Amino acid sequence: MREQFQRLLRRAADGSWRRIPSYRRGLEHLPEVQQMVVGPVTGPGPRLFLRNLDTEGAGFEYAIFLHASGHRTQCLCQLGPYLEGHHGFTHGGAIATLIDTTVGTCALAVAKTSVMTAKLSISYLAPMPVGAVVMADSRLERHEGRKIFLSCCVRDTKGDTLYAEATALFIQVEDTKPPPAACP
Amino acid sequence: MREQFQRLLRRAADGSWRRIPSYRRGLEHLPEVQQMVVGPVTGPGPRLFLRNLDTEGAGFEYAIFLHASGHRTQCLCQLGPYLEGHHGFTHGGAIATLIDTTVGTCALAVAKTSVMTAKLSISYLAPMPVGAVVMADSRLERHEGRKIFLSCCVRDTKGDTLYAEATALFIQVEDTKPPPAACP
Repeated sequence: MREQFQRLLRRAADGSWRRIPSYRRGLEHLPEVQQMVVGPVTGPGPRLFLRNLDTEGAGFEYAIFLHASGHRTQCLCQLGPYLEGHHGFTHGGAIATLIDTTVGTCALAVAKTSVMTAKLSISYLAPMPVGAVVMADSRLERHEGRKIFLSCCVRDTKGDTLYAEATALFIQVEDTKPPPAACP
Repeated sequence: MREQFQRLLRRAADGSWRRIPSYRRGLEHLPEVQQMVVGPVTGPGPRLFLRNLDTEGAGFEYAIFLHASGHRTQCLCQLGPYLEGHHGFTHGGAIATLIDTTVGTCALAVAKTSVMTAKLSISYLAPMPVGAVVMADSRLERHEGRKIFLSCCVRDTKGDTLYAEATALFIQVEDTKPPPAACP
């Protein structure tokens, strides 16, 4: 994975791609995106779902890269042993989480406001072993008003195995207002 | 949540519903389901994705109930603060994980062999605050050969808010063989 990561970092050196830094919560990684205002969060210490494990290598180890066009994201991810579904295989929900995060980051870059997932349709094409290092590759398909349509493929880093394909619809949330009770 | 849980437990007393016990890994909770055979898992301590946090109340706190028909499951779940996406709201991937688990348990009961998620399509209808207690309600729609089609709704426990609707396709994995390289 380190070699792949270094290759992606080198690719970012010419400004065509940008690495989204790691973060524990929220949207601080895309300062150009207007923040959604919500009420204070009660209870102890909310944490970003993908960053909620302290054991290194156990969960999602990932880095997201945004293309200069703002219309494409690539997420290099190792899916650790704490993401298991069937014995030895990654949980379908963990793969959905990786996809939602990758397309969601692309949608944020497109919208430049907060976005919410409205639809997510995933085809699981091959079982993914725990410990797999994969690349989720997402791109904007079209942008109609507040609707942002995207697609995503998840492959092993050699590109030999296509683990999953997905389409997604995100809805822009108006600048500083709280999210709607129901997204259309 | 405790009151809801007690109500569900009482409902199970007449045998019409059965609680699926908590577990850390795999399918031990449905002894009638034939286990899929895979190679030995390397690396330290795999854990079920939904049970990988030790901090009580931080992640998925859930109990699954299977209807006597074997064609319906209900999952009562509190989505803790470590499942955050947007500030204050549950990550779309965490909701997908809850749905995949609920429909997957139903598919297992229908198939009585291992099953793999083949398709999952989710409509996110309302943002779900972290800490929400919800009910995921899944049922068999039809069973055609190795294909098991299911649906799922996720509501707050009063039934006032419909957070998500989903359809799913699971594929039966033949008894003791390893899973196919690609599910149809």
